[in-house]
Order: sequence, then C-alpha cells, then structure tokens
Amino acid sequence: MKKKNGAAGPIAFQGERGAFSEEAVRQLLGPDTPVLPCTRFEDLFRHLKAGRVAGAIVPIENTLAGSVHENYDHLLQFELPIVAETSVRIVHNLIAPPGVSFAKIRRVFSHPVALNQCLDFFGKNPRIERTPFYDTAGSVKMIMEEGFTDAGAIASRVAAEIYGGRILRRSIESDRQNFTRFFLLRTPDYARRNPVRAAANTVWKTSLVFSTRNHPGSLFRALSAFALRDLNLIKIESRPLRGKPWEYLFYLDFLGHVDTPVPQNALRHLREIADFLRVLGCYPKGA
Amino acid sequence: MKKKNGAAGPIAFQGERGAFSEEAVRQLLGPDTPVLPCTRFEDLFRHLKAGRVAGAIVPIENTLAGSVHENYDHLLQFELPIVAETSVRIVHNLIAPPGVSFAKIRRVFSHPVALNQCLDFFGKNPRIERTPFYDTAGSVKMIMEEGFTDAGAIASRVAAEIYGGRILRRSIESDRQNFTRFFLLRTPDYARRNPVRAAANTVWKTSLVFSTRNHPGSLFRALSAFALRDLNLIKIESRPLRGKPWEYLFYLDFLGHVDTPVPQNALRHLREIADFLRVLGCYPKGA
Repeated sequence: MKKKNGAAGPIAFQGERGAFSEEAVRQLLGPDTPVLPCTRFEDLFRHLKAGRVAGAIVPIENTLAGSVHENYDHLLQFELPIVAETSVRIVHNLIAPPGVSFAKIRRVFSHPVALNQCLDFFGKNPRIERTPFYDTAGSVKMIMEEGFTDAGAIASRVAAEIYGGRILRRSIESDRQNFTRFFLLRTPDYARRNPVRAAANTVWKTSLVFSTRNHPGSLFRALSAFALRDLNLIKIESRPLRGKPWEYLFYLDFLGHVDTPVPQNALRHLREIADFLRVLGCYPKGA
Repeated sequence: MKKKNGAAGPIAFQGERGAFSEEAVRQLLGPDTPVLPCTRFEDLFRHLKAGRVAGAIVPIENTLAGSVHENYDHLLQFELPIVAETSVRIVHNLIAPPGVSFAKIRRVFSHPVALNQCLDFFGKNPRIERTPFYDTAGSVKMIMEEGFTDAGAIASRVAAEIYGGRILRRSIESDRQNFTRFFLLRTPDYARRNPVRAAANTVWKTSLVFSTRNHPGSLFRALSAFALRDLNLIKIESRPLRGKPWEYLFYLDFLGHVDTPVPQNALRHLREIADFLRVLGCYPKGA
C-alpha cells in the first residue's frame, strides 16, 4: 500500500507521541502521516535500515544546545540519505488535565532541558516546583493518566492535543530563538527511485562528511574547494575519528545541488585533498 | 599559605574522589595536590571565578565521545585562562571489595559510558549484569560502603586505591585508543602573576574563540590567517551563537606561542575578519 508520503509504512521519530519530532513529521509530510515513536535515536536508524519504516525524522541541531552529535555519528554509520530538512520552533506550553486551573499548580513535570529553558517562568512563579521527567510529551501523558489535580507538564501544543490536556500558559520559554533542525532520512533504494522534486527557484543544500590527513593547512585546503568557487558553507561540525586519537571527521553543509557543475567541481577538488569523502544528502533548503 | 602547585587552595575537579579528572590533576601538579571534588562542571568555573579554589581541571574532549561541549560554553562565559593541558588514558578496571573473588561477581556498577566501553568484557562474561550508576569512582565508593559480596565496580586505579578496593581485572575497556584531554584553568590574576615557564624547545599551543559574519567564504578567510603563515591548526569546534539562530562560534587550537611574531600577525589578521575574537590560553603542548 502506497501512503500519501510516497512510501509504505510509518515515519519513525524519537520520543513519545506529541514530541517536537512529531511536529517536524507533520511540517514535512502532513498531519495524517502515520508515525512510529521510538525510545532511542539509534532505533530510528535501525528500523529504517531494516525497511520496517518508510522514513525517519532525526534532530541534528538546536539553536541553543548545539548539534546532536550522536546523530552525526549514526549518519556516517548507517548510510541513509537525507532527502529533506525542516526547522521546528520550540514552543513550551504549560499543560494540565482539564479542570486543573493555573492557581492549583504546585509541580510541573518535563524533560530537564525544557525545565531549564523556562527559568523566567519559574522565577515569576516560585510556588511551582520543577520536577524532572524523561520526556516532554511523556510528562503530559503521565499527568493525564495519573489524574493529578495539582500538577502540570511542559510540552508542545501537539502533546496537549494528543493526550487531551489543556494549555494554561502558551510559550513560556525564556528565549524565543529556540529552533531545532531535523533531517528526513529514507532508504538508499527509496531515494534512488524517488528523486526529490522542487520548483525551479528552489535553493538546495548538500551535506557531506570528509577527513583529511592531519598536517598544516589541510582543513584550509579542503575548504578552498568551496571558497574558490563561491559556494556558501552553512555549517561545519567536527567529530573524533575512531581509532585515530586527536584526528577528526568534518561534516559540512553547503548551498548548491550536488548534480550541478560547480558543486561537482568542488567535490572533485575535495576528493583530491580528502582521505575519505561521502555525500550524505542533497535536499531543498528548509524555511 | 603557598602550596607546591604555586597557589593557595585546592584544585577543583568534577566527580567523586578517584575520578579520571583526579588522575589529570596528579599528572599535571603531582600526587599530593589538594583537590575539591564537585558535582557539576559549572561548579568548577564558579568556584575558581570566586577564588575559592586555586585552579580547576576541566575535561574538554575524549577520543571516542568527542568534545565536552558544555565546557566550551563555560570557557567563553567565565573567562578563566587555560594554563596547561594533559591527556589521561582511560583505563577501566574491575574493582571489588577485598575478599570478593572474580567468580563471585554477579553485578557490576559504573557510569553508563564506562559500562558501554567494556562490552567485550561483558560479552565474554554473560553471567555478570551491568548496573548503571551516576559515577565511575562513586560506584567503587558505594560497593565498599555497602559491603556487597557479589558486586564489583568499573573505575580507575586511583579509585581502587582511595576506597580500598581490589583490582580483579585490569584494563577491560574494549578500545585502548580511549583518551581524555583536560585543561588546567587558573584565575586571570594568577595567570598574569605566574606566566607559564617551560624549556626552550617546548612546543606551545594557543586556544581561541571567534565568530564571523555568515557570508560565503568567511570561515575560509578566517582560517587563511593561520594557513598562509604555515601555523598548524590542531582542532576546530563549532558551537551555536546565542540569539543568532544558525550562526556559530568557532573554537580553534593552533601550534605556536601567542607572544611570538607569526602568531601575533595571524591574530591581527584574524581580528580584521572576525566580529569577535578572544584568546582562551597559551600552554605547553601535552604529551
């Protein structure tokens, strides 16, 4: 059976139903996309590699916390192509069971990162105790199941909707510049059979990973492959190279479609310099 | 009172007594250096900033797990100079209370990262259950206090020594290429009054942080300040710039002493390109 998103089966994401990752699925593939919540990031890659899901949504960086380094490592290991990206604005809402008013709230459950991103709110409401929980959306599920009359949870709007919670306060995060960027991964076979189509004026991004021998100027020479061709480098991230202490892999994103002449020349040039080079995906630049 | 390490007061490190950080203190300042164990990385910086300790030992990267990004953020925020570096080989030992033989061990406690780094050992000894604990050295302390007769812990040699445990199996980590690099931080005042002295043939490292405007080739131009002068870049790390989504700070280490002519020229050149630049420290390259 072919689904609306073009492949059979659900999209895997990490977290409970209503996690910010599920918002990313909805943004990219529509609100009715079937999903498979998973416990660990590695599960997403394993399920997709084994063909048990049609795709996987993977958070790769947050504007406050930085890169999700574990997922960079999985991208290298599992060789599953990136076919799309999107950014989700992280809006934290105070959610409670219906009938529980704001004045009754004494404890608030959520993931420690989410609790820490709402310090202004807790500063203004010192009567409310912060209670760490393993997951943002999972904390909504839990307060609804337990039927607490003095507790709330901090999570996404979608989590409130899914578990039937009421939003008491919207957008209580201290810093509004809080976005998480997600990749949609598919199997190599699916990506080959379904090349990404986009309007003629689309801006494309290409993601790749490479390593160079560790001698003076090697990273500079590697970046020259892009700079000398006026290709705009959007991001660079380094990760340790296993088995070679103090040597690194570099992950790069640049603007350009991998099948057009200038990026092709840049990649040919980089191959002369790099010991190892792999393109991880080429996809339309997200909003 | 002046201590052997040249400043009054202990050296702060994160973890329980016997943590790998304490090995780093011993390597840099000798086995009799007084220490202050702290719970969180941020505590190290706060104590040193407030002058409550003479220095702080901070892990900055591990050859398997990568950079300790939280500490990069603290280096920027607290402005405490790096005056030395060292690397500790992470050797995991199976430790038990005296009188408990290997054949009796049914459970082993340790930090989840340490347990995961000994998977070959657990594969060969399927009767032994892995039990996550908050700290490696703390797990030795706990099994000694509880007097378990069927339990061991995975931690450093120093942890066995401090808590009176016996090492039953040495070096059970799966990957021997496991090193953690540490910085020794001092107060700016201390660093000014006690410039680092070293032999004439010492190789020096300089660490700095900078940001550039996000336009094509800006990172390449920044790196040209070093490459055009044959200065060897050892490491580059990016972190998100707060309040400017999808812009980054770059942390660089290069070989060279900041007060010699070529690095001085490189820094002057980089200042033309960078919006922001700060030297974090200059110190002899560790073994």
